[in-house]
Formats: sequence, C-alpha cells, structure tokens
Amino acid sequence: MKTARFRFEGEVYEAEAYDYGLEVDGEVYAEMDVELLPPCEPSKIVAVGRNYVEHAEELDNVVPEFPLFFFKPPSALVGGGGEIRYPAETDDLHYEGELGVVIGERCRDVAEGEALDYVRGYTCVNDVTMRDWQERESQWARAKGGDTFCPVGPYLVSAADIDPSDLDIETRLNGDVVQSSNTRHMAYSVEEIVAELSRYMTLEPGDLIATGTPEGVGAMERGDHVEVEVEGVGVLENEVV
Amino acid sequence: MKTARFRFEGEVYEAEAYDYGLEVDGEVYAEMDVELLPPCEPSKIVAVGRNYVEHAEELDNVVPEFPLFFFKPPSALVGGGGEIRYPAETDDLHYEGELGVVIGERCRDVAEGEALDYVRGYTCVNDVTMRDWQERESQWARAKGGDTFCPVGPYLVSAADIDPSDLDIETRLNGDVVQSSNTRHMAYSVEEIVAELSRYMTLEPGDLIATGTPEGVGAMERGDHVEVEVEGVGVLENEVV
Repeated sequence: MKTARFRFEGEVYEAEAYDYGLEVDGEVYAEMDVELLPPCEPSKIVAVGRNYVEHAEELDNVVPEFPLFFFKPPSALVGGGGEIRYPAETDDLHYEGELGVVIGERCRDVAEGEALDYVRGYTCVNDVTMRDWQERESQWARAKGGDTFCPVGPYLVSAADIDPSDLDIETRLNGDVVQSSNTRHMAYSVEEIVAELSRYMTLEPGDLIATGTPEGVGAMERGDHVEVEVEGVGVLENEVV
Repeated sequence: MKTARFRFEGEVYEAEAYDYGLEVDGEVYAEMDVELLPPCEPSKIVAVGRNYVEHAEELDNVVPEFPLFFFKPPSALVGGGGEIRYPAETDDLHYEGELGVVIGERCRDVAEGEALDYVRGYTCVNDVTMRDWQERESQWARAKGGDTFCPVGPYLVSAADIDPSDLDIETRLNGDVVQSSNTRHMAYSVEEIVAELSRYMTLEPGDLIATGTPEGVGAMERGDHVEVEVEGVGVLENEVV
C-alpha cells in the first residue's frame, strides 16, 4: 500500500495513493489539486553519511568503520512538489537522492534480524546540501539543516510490499540522469543501520532515516527541476527557487 | 517568572515554580513528589560547539570563524532529577554544562538587535558527550545524540527576568566544582547565535539552543551526581546510572 499526506483548503489529510489519485474515505483528490506534505511526521531525521563506496570516493572519503550518522531538523522538511530554497549564503547547493526509511514502532536495541519489523515503510529523500559550507565547517548542521533541505515523499510504501536491499535509485536534474545506482551498493544495509542506531537512541514512530546517497552528486541552480526516484517507491519532484 | 513541567500520577502539568513548590491553578506540588520533565518541548535542539575560548583550547581547537552548530534529537531529552544512562559502548562519558535558550515565537531571518524578542526564556542544559566517539567520528550525532544525553531544566526562567550576557555558570560533580565561568566569555552571544541560526532555519516555539560549554569538561562515572547551575536560572541535577 502507498500512503500520502496532503493539505487541501487548509485541512490536512492522510490518503491512500493510487494511479487515479489520492483517496480519503472513498473520496478522490487529484495530486495536482493538493499540496503534498511529507508522508511522515518525524520527531527526528537521521541521515547516514558515506554509505555508498563510490560516493565516498568521489568526495575523497572512505566508507567509515561504523555507520556515520548526522541529523537534519524537522524544519527542513518539504513534500513532493514543494520548493527547494536556494540560500543566498551558498554558491554550491547539491542534490543527494536517497532511500528513506520510516519507523513504525518505538524501538531501542533492536537486533539486525528484527530491524525490519520496526519499519513502517519507505520513501524518497533528497538530502540537500550546501557543499561549500560542508567543506568549511566540521559539523554539517548548517550545510544540511536549512529550511527545505529535506524534501521527502511523495509516498510512503508499506514495508511489507518492498525489499529495501535491491532497489534501483536514480536522480534526474532537468530530465538528465545524474545519479544511478542500486541500494544493494549500500555499505550498511537498512537492517544494520536501524540496529546500530537503536543501540544509542530510541527510534519513534514516524522517525525518518535517510540511508545515504550514491555517486553522482552535483550542483543545482535556481529554476532547476530535480527528481529522486526509488524503484517501486515513487518519484520525488521539487523545483529549486 | 519560573515555569516547570512535571508528571504526577500519569498526568503532565505546566506549573509556576516557587521556593515553596510547583503551583498549578492554586494547588502546590512538592518537587520531590513529582517527575520533573524538560521545561520545553523542542521540535529541534541546536547546540553550539566551541563557543568559549578556553574550552576550545582545552580540546586543542579554536573558536570557529562562524558559530558551529550541531543537533541533538528530542529523544535525548531528560528532565531535572532524571537519570543519565552510561552506555556500554563508551569509556569516556563527559558532562558539559551550558546555558539553554528556549524560543518563544516562530522566527526566521531575525536581526541581532531583535533576536531576544523571540526568546521565551532560559534554562540549564548538560550536553552529555561520549568523548571517545566524538574523536572517532567526524559527525557528533552518535557521540552527543544518545538517549538521556540532553538533561534540561529544571526551570524555564522568563526572558524578561534575566540578562543572558552576564550569568555565572558552574558544573559540580559529586559536589566538587569542575566548570566555573560566566556567559560573558561566550565567543558568540545569544543574540548572535539566534540571528545566525535563523538565517538558515526557521526556529519554532519551544526549540532549544544549547549555547556551548566553558572549560573544565571531564568524565562522569556511574553513580556520579552532576549539577549544572546557571545564575538566576536554577540547578539541574542528574544521576549517572
């Protein structure tokens, strides 16, 4: 099942997403008529750095010995179709297409073998990054934490419907393919990430984990149209303004 | 005015805090009878690294050219009197006493001169850190993001009642003074921090900013009693378990 959240005439709805539209209690809304919202409401957003070997190498890094976690704030969230704001403070704003994992049940100290039991589903994430600021500072909060730096969606696909270990992932900039990989190239799997993270912090329902970006990151310009597609999950589309 | 939040017999209360107890609608509760909660409910927690010259130097760092921001997750929060969990994964768990700033009104792109208008008040924070993990990884999410790594409280003192630019700050470990400084030694003031942060991200009511720790950081052991006192704000007490 695919679900979505949207705003219509000031009200927020949770819907099931179908080819013919967004259905709420038998009523169907067209996507073009509504404002899509992130399909989850995370209390925290955890991202994984350098989780694809070829991406780590393209920025002269290596895959770390332990999964490298960092946070993005909920104020960075924007849904499918929403605008990515290009800040005046940067000259190098990058896309990073990623598979997003949404937690379904509160958990802590989860074993790898049971980690997927706590996952509600999957979505697409763009881990928007000011690359110049990322290189200027040791911590990435400013580089990756700005408003609209976490486009997510448009759908949440139920965990039961998909195997996260073998999904094609592609980012397109103005229609050109700029990132093309598969989640089987992740250094740490979804199970490993959830288990490791839960050794340190309680994961709450709705929490979002961005599982890292493959090689091919690059700059976006104002006016660009960026799409992140994860096989079977959907296409996350945003404009840079 | 000082406010507090607490849980009593399963219910959460917002109270005014007085020497004689916590008052809710004329009824008074003794602090020892209730479970204190963090006095704010942040959607995000932003901390400032290396904001006191002498602390930066004690860890062989310098005060950065721009305020260095990092995030702690809401799942790390614990109130006054709550327990700090010593994880099995570390051998070097440190206290870091700090002045906490709580946002009162949603804001974005705030001028320095108006920054304090958006502050609801002040509290005490302990930015608990696994120093070994902080040195092992480039990002500090694991080192500083674990459960109970953000003790906050016990009170929120109204912004109108206090000048954040000249407050003694002291941390005590089992009664011994281990950190002793004054907020006038902060490299970036509260106004500068709020203004700079708001250039990048919207600050929401309840959001918490930990303004950095002075020199004297050090290890806590299981069974230790740690207190963070900010002049006129209160004493945040926690046990390490």
